Formats: sequence, C-alpha cells, structure tokens
Amino acid sequence: MSAGANRRQVTGFSNPTVKFIRSLREKKHRKREGKFLAEGLRLLTDARECGHVPEILVMAEGRDPHPLVDALVDAVDAKGGEIIETSGDILAKITGKDNPQAVAGVFAEFDTSLESLDRSKARIWLVAQALRDPGNLGTMLRTGDAVGAGGLILLDDCADPFSVEAVRASMGAVFTQRVVQARWEEFVPWLREGEGQLVAASLREAVPYRGAPYAAPCFVMVGNESQGLPEAYETECDLRVTMPMRGRADSLNAAVAAAVLAYEVLDSLEG
Amino acid sequence: MSAGANRRQVTGFSNPTVKFIRSLREKKHRKREGKFLAEGLRLLTDARECGHVPEILVMAEGRDPHPLVDALVDAVDAKGGEIIETSGDILAKITGKDNPQAVAGVFAEFDTSLESLDRSKARIWLVAQALRDPGNLGTMLRTGDAVGAGGLILLDDCADPFSVEAVRASMGAVFTQRVVQARWEEFVPWLREGEGQLVAASLREAVPYRGAPYAAPCFVMVGNESQGLPEAYETECDLRVTMPMRGRADSLNAAVAAAVLAYEVLDSLEG
Repeated sequence: MSAGANRRQVTGFSNPTVKFIRSLREKKHRKREGKFLAEGLRLLTDARECGHVPEILVMAEGRDPHPLVDALVDAVDAKGGEIIETSGDILAKITGKDNPQAVAGVFAEFDTSLESLDRSKARIWLVAQALRDPGNLGTMLRTGDAVGAGGLILLDDCADPFSVEAVRASMGAVFTQRVVQARWEEFVPWLREGEGQLVAASLREAVPYRGAPYAAPCFVMVGNESQGLPEAYETECDLRVTMPMRGRADSLNAAVAAAVLAYEVLDSLEG
Repeated sequence: MSAGANRRQVTGFSNPTVKFIRSLREKKHRKREGKFLAEGLRLLTDARECGHVPEILVMAEGRDPHPLVDALVDAVDAKGGEIIETSGDILAKITGKDNPQAVAGVFAEFDTSLESLDRSKARIWLVAQALRDPGNLGTMLRTGDAVGAGGLILLDDCADPFSVEAVRASMGAVFTQRVVQARWEEFVPWLREGEGQLVAASLREAVPYRGAPYAAPCFVMVGNESQGLPEAYETECDLRVTMPMRGRADSLNAAVAAAVLAYEVLDSLEG
C-alpha cells in the first residue's frame, strides 16, 4: 500500500467522519449531503474501473494487503480524496457487516436530471414507475447493464437509487448506468420531443411480447410492485405487450418482468 | 361473519398462542413445529382457492367485514381450525405491520421430499442451488407459477422457502408450486432415473440461450447469488446456455436469470 498524504486513523465511534459516513445509510442525510455509500471491494473496483473514485475510502487498520485495495488507495490519493483506517468494530458499524476485510467508499451522488439524458447513447432504456423496493431497483440497474441499456428512468416516487441496498443489488451497475429521477408529467413531454418507443407489459389491448415490433430507442417500462402501472400510463404507451401467464398469478415481479421484456427487446433489435 | 365453534379472543402478548404464532417468524421454531406463517388477505385467499386452509387464522377484533375474510373464516371453520381475534397491537406484533385490516394464517409445512415429486406433472421445473436470499427464492416460485412450471427444487443449503419473506415474495405461488429440498448427491441420481434435461446458464462451452434445443421435462438451474454454480454441477448439465451480457457485469441476478431462461424454454417447448 502506498503512503498517501490524506490518510488518517480514526479510533472513536463519536468521530465526526465516522458519524458522517454512518449517517449516509439514511436517505435524509444522503439528500442533504449529496453523497452515498458503496461497500465491498468488488463494487468499489467496478466503480474505479468506470472512473468513479470515492471521496473517502474506509478500511480496517492492519487489513490484509490486496492489489485491488492498493489500486483503490492509489486512485483515491491521486484524486486528493481521504483514506480512513479504523478498527474492525467501527468498520462493522459503518458497513453493517462483521467483516474485517470490508472496504467502503463515499461517493458524490450523480446528476439524475432528465435534461442531461442523451437518448441516442443506447437502444434500450429501462423505466420504472413508483418502484418501492430498493432490491428491485438495483436489480433493474444490473439487468440494464446486461442488456446494454443506457440507464434507468425512475418515475414518480421510487426507492432511492443511492441507498446501500439498491447500490448493492446493482452489483456496480449504478456506476455504469445512467439514473434519472423525474415525474411522469416531465417525462412524457421529454420523450415526445424526440425519437422513442414507450413499451409496457400490460393486459390492456396488448400483443404477445415475442416478436412484437420493438423500435430503438426503446423505453421498457414497469410499474409499482403492488399496483402496476396507472391506466393513463399504459394508454400513453406506443406498444403494450403481454407475457404468457400459465398459472394463477396475473403478474411477475417487477424486476423480472423488466428483464424478460428487455431481453426480448434486445433480441428483436439485434436480430 | 359466521359464528364458528373454534373462535376465541386473545388479549395478552404473553398468551401462548400469540407467542407460538410469533415464534414462527424464526426458522428454528418453524422446523420444530412443522408450521409456517403466511400474511395478507390476498395470499390467504390464493391459498384457500388452491385448497390450503390455515390451521389458525388471526385477525383483529372488530375488523371491517369483507367477503373474502368471511370465506376464509368459513373454510377454517369447516376444517375444524382455530380463529383468533385479537387487538391491533398484538396483530401488529404477529405480522410485523401496523395494519388493523391484516390477517395471518398458520399452515402446516408441505412435504418437500424429492421422492414425492412427479416430474411428469409439468414440462418445466426450476432448480436453485445454495440460493440464500428469501426474496429471490419467493420470486422464483412466482416465476415458476407464471411459466407453468411444476415447482422449485432447492439444492444444498438454500434459504427457507417457508420464511415470511419467501412466502410474501412468492405472491401465493408457495401454495401452487411444489417445493423440494434435496442435496445435489440425491438430486442427480433421482434426475437420471427418468426423463429430464438439466439446463443451466453458464460461460463454459455454452450455446446461445435463444433457440437452444430445450426438451421437456426441462430442469432450469441457477446457482448461488455470489458464487454461481459449482463447476461439477455445470458439467453434469445436458445443456449449457449463455445469455448476452452487453455491459460490464458477467452475470444476472439469480431470479432474473431463471426467469429469462424459463421464458425462453416455455417459448421453445410451446412454439
């Protein structure tokens, strides 16, 4: 591990930096500070390889050496960030895990404005309305990465994409996918200003999802976990598709529906 | 609401029945008792409609009348089960939710033995190895219901399918899908005794998942959330398929991978 200028050891639970980092587990503190917390060497390495270096890196003092940790430390040093070495107990309080090999990083939240989104950057975009479960949200980011989507547009009141749970479920995709937060009333005019096909899984006047006429840029939309999409949102869609439901249930988990549909769109656009 | 013989009011947190029901939130108590807890009117109605009636039904005293609650009460009465009316506070302790309209039911756990599984009952079966997340497990049950699978075979040390979280994520599919628990060493001989194609998503000598030669009964297998499948398990597969990964990640969420693959198998077998 190289010796950096901005390294310090922190030993007390009441240390302001420790309290600050722990506070980022709560949404109100994340919003106030504009920062979020990501945990785990793999996640932080993914972030680094995508050009996202934490402003603060936290690890246990006397941690086992690891080339990926060295690379992180070097990257933080190079950007003038801060490196905190602390006790295993304090690290466990920050990460919520009793793992002395854990690392955690504090990042600045990204711009999530619709205006900054360039739809020409990708052929598929995922859209979620009132998605409440941070695990589903993170899973959609991960799926978006897999299908080569450009990002995830969160409509209305969704879970926080910068929560620890969403970041973890994204498996690093929060650093590769664009994340946008917008109201439906903003989204529709923006969508209609340019090219874009809005597609949703629906039971209303829908065609089979296999072989439907998808067109890029294709915006694949799913609704709230228990309510689904409001009728007006489905009506606005350019294409409503239906997936086979062979059992008792009439719907899939939201992240699953998005994935099955997105893979079909991917095949259609590439095929 | 009809007047049943086995109805009683319970007012104390220390009441043995209340303590018993609450204890079912923990796995060790579920295993010892062979019972599990399901919550919510929709879930309990799904269960009833599939012929599963709770041994104990719990609801708040003075609850708003509802025809589906009446139907549940009648079904429990008819089977000689017990109906507990209690305070909103105690109900909240049992369900973990502050909802006075909540209902909860205690069910006997189902037979999860491999021997009792009849593979000819369905053309698709889902298989998960060392799946740790109860939400993923429940989501796989829900997906299984949707694709007309017969059930979910849980290999090695998986999350408990009868946990409150898994039951909830299944959206009732725990009552429609067979659930089996087995070791890999038991599963393979059982599988090879009869017809059955074992398929997994893999990076090893795999063919594209679209248009692969799926055959019924098709056993669609996914591995542990962080480790994936052990190499020996993949080697045993009759078919290894690969899904496009257009981004940085090399894998999907386990429940998502199972769903994308299962929908492809469904299309292939029906097409």
